[in-house]
Amino acid sequence: MKHIDNFKSIVDRYQIVFFDAFGVLKNYKGLVPGIEKTFAYLEQQGKEYYIVTNDASRSPVQLAESYHRQGLHAISPDRIVSSGMLAKEYLDLKVKDGIVAFLGTPESAHYIENEGRHTLSVNQVNSTNMDKVNAFVFMDDEGFDWFEDINKTVNILRKRTIPAIVANTDYAYPLSANDVSVAIGGIANMVESIVGKEFIRFGKPDSQMFMFAYDLIRERRQISKKDIVMVGDTLYTDIIGGNKFGLDTVLVLSGNTLPEDAEAAIHSTGIVPTYICESAVVHGGELDL
Amino acid sequence: MKHIDNFKSIVDRYQIVFFDAFGVLKNYKGLVPGIEKTFAYLEQQGKEYYIVTNDASRSPVQLAESYHRQGLHAISPDRIVSSGMLAKEYLDLKVKDGIVAFLGTPESAHYIENEGRHTLSVNQVNSTNMDKVNAFVFMDDEGFDWFEDINKTVNILRKRTIPAIVANTDYAYPLSANDVSVAIGGIANMVESIVGKEFIRFGKPDSQMFMFAYDLIRERRQISKKDIVMVGDTLYTDIIGGNKFGLDTVLVLSGNTLPEDAEAAIHSTGIVPTYICESAVVHGGELDL
Amino acid sequence: MKHIDNFKSIVDRYQIVFFDAFGVLKNYKGLVPGIEKTFAYLEQQGKEYYIVTNDASRSPVQLAESYHRQGLHAISPDRIVSSGMLAKEYLDLKVKDGIVAFLGTPESAHYIENEGRHTLSVNQVNSTNMDKVNAFVFMDDEGFDWFEDINKTVNILRKRTIPAIVANTDYAYPLSANDVSVAIGGIANMVESIVGKEFIRFGKPDSQMFMFAYDLIRERRQISKKDIVMVGDTLYTDIIGGNKFGLDTVLVLSGNTLPEDAEAAIHSTGIVPTYICESAVVHGGELDL
Amino acid sequence: MKHIDNFKSIVDRYQIVFFDAFGVLKNYKGLVPGIEKTFAYLEQQGKEYYIVTNDASRSPVQLAESYHRQGLHAISPDRIVSSGMLAKEYLDLKVKDGIVAFLGTPESAHYIENEGRHTLSVNQVNSTNMDKVNAFVFMDDEGFDWFEDINKTVNILRKRTIPAIVANTDYAYPLSANDVSVAIGGIANMVESIVGKEFIRFGKPDSQMFMFAYDLIRERRQISKKDIVMVGDTLYTDIIGGNKFGLDTVLVLSGNTLPEDAEAAIHSTGIVPTYICESAVVHGGELDL
Repeated sequence: MKHIDNFKSIVDRYQIVFFDAFGVLKNYKGLVPGIEKTFAYLEQQGKEYYIVTNDASRSPVQLAESYHRQGLHAISPDRIVSSGMLAKEYLDLKVKDGIVAFLGTPESAHYIENEGRHTLSVNQVNSTNMDKVNAFVFMDDEGFDWFEDINKTVNILRKRTIPAIVANTDYAYPLSANDVSVAIGGIANMVESIVGKEFIRFGKPDSQMFMFAYDLIRERRQISKKDIVMVGDTLYTDIIGGNKFGLDTVLVLSGNTLPEDAEAAIHSTGIVPTYICESAVVHGGELDL
Repeated sequence: MKHIDNFKSIVDRYQIVFFDAFGVLKNYKGLVPGIEKTFAYLEQQGKEYYIVTNDASRSPVQLAESYHRQGLHAISPDRIVSSGMLAKEYLDLKVKDGIVAFLGTPESAHYIENEGRHTLSVNQVNSTNMDKVNAFVFMDDEGFDWFEDINKTVNILRKRTIPAIVANTDYAYPLSANDVSVAIGGIANMVESIVGKEFIRFGKPDSQMFMFAYDLIRERRQISKKDIVMVGDTLYTDIIGGNKFGLDTVLVLSGNTLPEDAEAAIHSTGIVPTYICESAVVHGGELDL
Repeated sequence: MKHIDNFKSIVDRYQIVFFDAFGVLKNYKGLVPGIEKTFAYLEQQGKEYYIVTNDASRSPVQLAESYHRQGLHAISPDRIVSSGMLAKEYLDLKVKDGIVAFLGTPESAHYIENEGRHTLSVNQVNSTNMDKVNAFVFMDDEGFDWFEDINKTVNILRKRTIPAIVANTDYAYPLSANDVSVAIGGIANMVESIVGKEFIRFGKPDSQMFMFAYDLIRERRQISKKDIVMVGDTLYTDIIGGNKFGLDTVLVLSGNTLPEDAEAAIHSTGIVPTYICESAVVHGGELDL
Repeated sequence: MKHIDNFKSIVDRYQIVFFDAFGVLKNYKGLVPGIEKTFAYLEQQGKEYYIVTNDASRSPVQLAESYHRQGLHAISPDRIVSSGMLAKEYLDLKVKDGIVAFLGTPESAHYIENEGRHTLSVNQVNSTNMDKVNAFVFMDDEGFDWFEDINKTVNILRKRTIPAIVANTDYAYPLSANDVSVAIGGIANMVESIVGKEFIRFGKPDSQMFMFAYDLIRERRQISKKDIVMVGDTLYTDIIGGNKFGLDTVLVLSGNTLPEDAEAAIHSTGIVPTYICESAVVHGGELDL
């Protein structure tokens, strides 16, 4: 584990960089200050990059637009790998027809629609269409009435023997410097413990997230896992997930892991990043931008 | 493990009977048909009985009234031991002053009020009184806005280093023949996994429930654990809890455990009741009532 | 939560003191230096005390002798409440005859023997006596061949539908300043996860430990939980267990919880002792001993 | 979920078949009778196949030889994907030098050796080489003294902040019709719960197992996940893992899942295979072999 002062030297060592989004590129206040310099340097050096994020609230197009609105234009939809994309791939491969009931917003559901398959918010499931529900997806923590619709979800999943997909495994996400909000992964866990069935989860630290990004690259060119580095702020998702997939990893201290806690957290969890770096911001005058 | 045809022969063997409530005395349709004969026989034989129930939604007085309204007058408040009573005892012993914030109905909170201590629904906690919140209690799944107040609970418990009490450990409860509802124990579990702290739980199978009832008896007379039998419909709460406390136990098949599944469930869990009986109803003409 | 400089002022506030053993009275090097002064002061002041310990390796008589050998004569067998005693009480109440198979030393088993019941080391269980095995007890991590006998235990518990008792819930115990040893509670957990049955566990933080000691006192005199304080070095067993039972609690910093970590550990777990004190040693010249 | 009488019709629908080993191709008595016909038919039809197995006890070459000795010559080393291969890939990518300590047999360790890296049985780790231990691997349940070496493993992992790799996640494996043996995955779980660190696990149901096999195929030719079917006897590993990776799945009833339990197990777990088939044996005279 090496301490690195300037993220620039990380970029220089690899051909491809995977970034976590929250706590690395942005936080509850907006973009991490200076992060645009990192993407300018990546472009200048001809390095490839992907955002690998536990998020199923929106499509990659919508996610990219949110970066553009904040002034980070380097991130196009084809550079985003979200846990929602894995849920969509699962449904495309495994659930050809019928209804996919969901907890989430209409936007989150729109993305997983396809021709043969129909999405339906859980509040519209009733005794006339219950038999056609062939899968259930936990997409987002907003867009539904928690009391009515969580209870209804429990009863749908007790009655129907169907796959239940968790499209974002996070338990909570930050709202502000002091407050968090329960994420759909937390709600899914509660429902799972009540119905006693096995849900299918997509999201870091699971390898399938990293594999999805890795495959996107390999469709176009030969690459080795040694050429990729994963950058994240969370030991339990970004770092252990990246390590297990065989990537080098960078823990940045701009999010969940505070600078004063990093060493103790690494020791107590046994999750060891290849590097520790204050942030993913590239510094230095040699960056002729 | 003996199969018993008539609950009467169970009553005849013990001086004191502990009953679980839901699935034993009542179900979603009302009282278990014939259960009044059991209490008539208990009274006739001079046997003592207690209802030992995971419930913090109401006080013992209100719980007794609900049996009276349904026609079972034998159950007086002093015969009821609820998990809510343990939560109240905890607060009386350990939280002398300040605010006890809660999730639940006003009735559930009314019961845990006392002189020095003030209860406050979570939606009324704010930045001006947050510092005085000295405990948090999960009482009931109704009486609050799930989205607003569960999220607020998470943030209160992240900020305040205070005991969090779960006054009913059940994850769900039956609403009808086909539907269940998420119980406050399920919600508490989700919150605990998000805030990462250790909550204090009251309710079967924990021994403290049985001890509370046992102490009520011993205040008045000498008794041995061998003189008590625990009757319940659920292996994971009533039976293993009663066994561990050292009581003989009866599994009745009028609730959670279906007659056709009982043997397999006992074998697969290793939770062995002393007896199996169809229901807690006393049968027979010899019962001169 | 108050910081207390001298344990003497704790003793002065209560009538009865419950002590954890390891990390409070002794550690891997022997007795905590000066601890005899605490017991002298307790005797002088006419205060009652009990050792409440997760230990099933020996009988209370043998445990007391080990204190005597080290020079602490104040601890007699009747002052010791061990998790092994709860296992014995369970067997006495619930397993009247047949064989109780066990993992542990002959000494640990000797203590749970009684007239109708026969204990048998797991290595002596075979096809001729398997049918008579009516309970299984995890007593101690020594006295058996781990490979042979843990595997045999798994297969006995898969075949026999009998109660499995864990007489000490600890996962590990300290051997020296740097090393720990796997405890029988850790082994029991592994076996439970493999056989998929529910085991019965005795030991702190479970309330039944505290109740056992509380009952010993009440056999002789009236007492309230307010008159008792629990002293321990471990938040997850001594402190949360004592709190839940309704006792005031003292976290001492002479064992598992290091002085520099105490505040952070309390905040991150939400387990709040009534007091924090450097050790359970009574200081001061006013102690005319 | 369709019931299929003859495994032949499964083979006819896909280009590539993934097989679990134990309970599908073989059991404790040897090969599943008739399984050689399946491989003859696969060869005849020009279908590709892989064995995807949680096993780190031996190299693919040794695993293939064990099939050959039993008379199944169709299985060559390049057709085997084992969890041990993933552990080896991890080490090759992430642990360039120093010592890899292990629990297991010398054969299991030999396979993960490489030039820069040295493997060392845990019993040979001591104070002089402890500092060079850069990773720990749980390989196999044999080849070491359980008492000495499991305790030593706990202490190595408490002292060294290094990755701990579990090369086979299974908790137990069958020894005979009636008996099982604790597997290294069960031991690893116990050690993890004691040291409190996060281990890295390889094996079904984790996607990385399926991905490894999928990549082997794609090195040589274009393929879609729709062309592959996964065949297994265990819902919790083979079926949910295959499903999550996006493959069609076949539950065979020749191993862990008994014919009489299959429907209930599917309903209670919510893990739904695409097909159910008695075994993986191809039947029928039309098979001109």
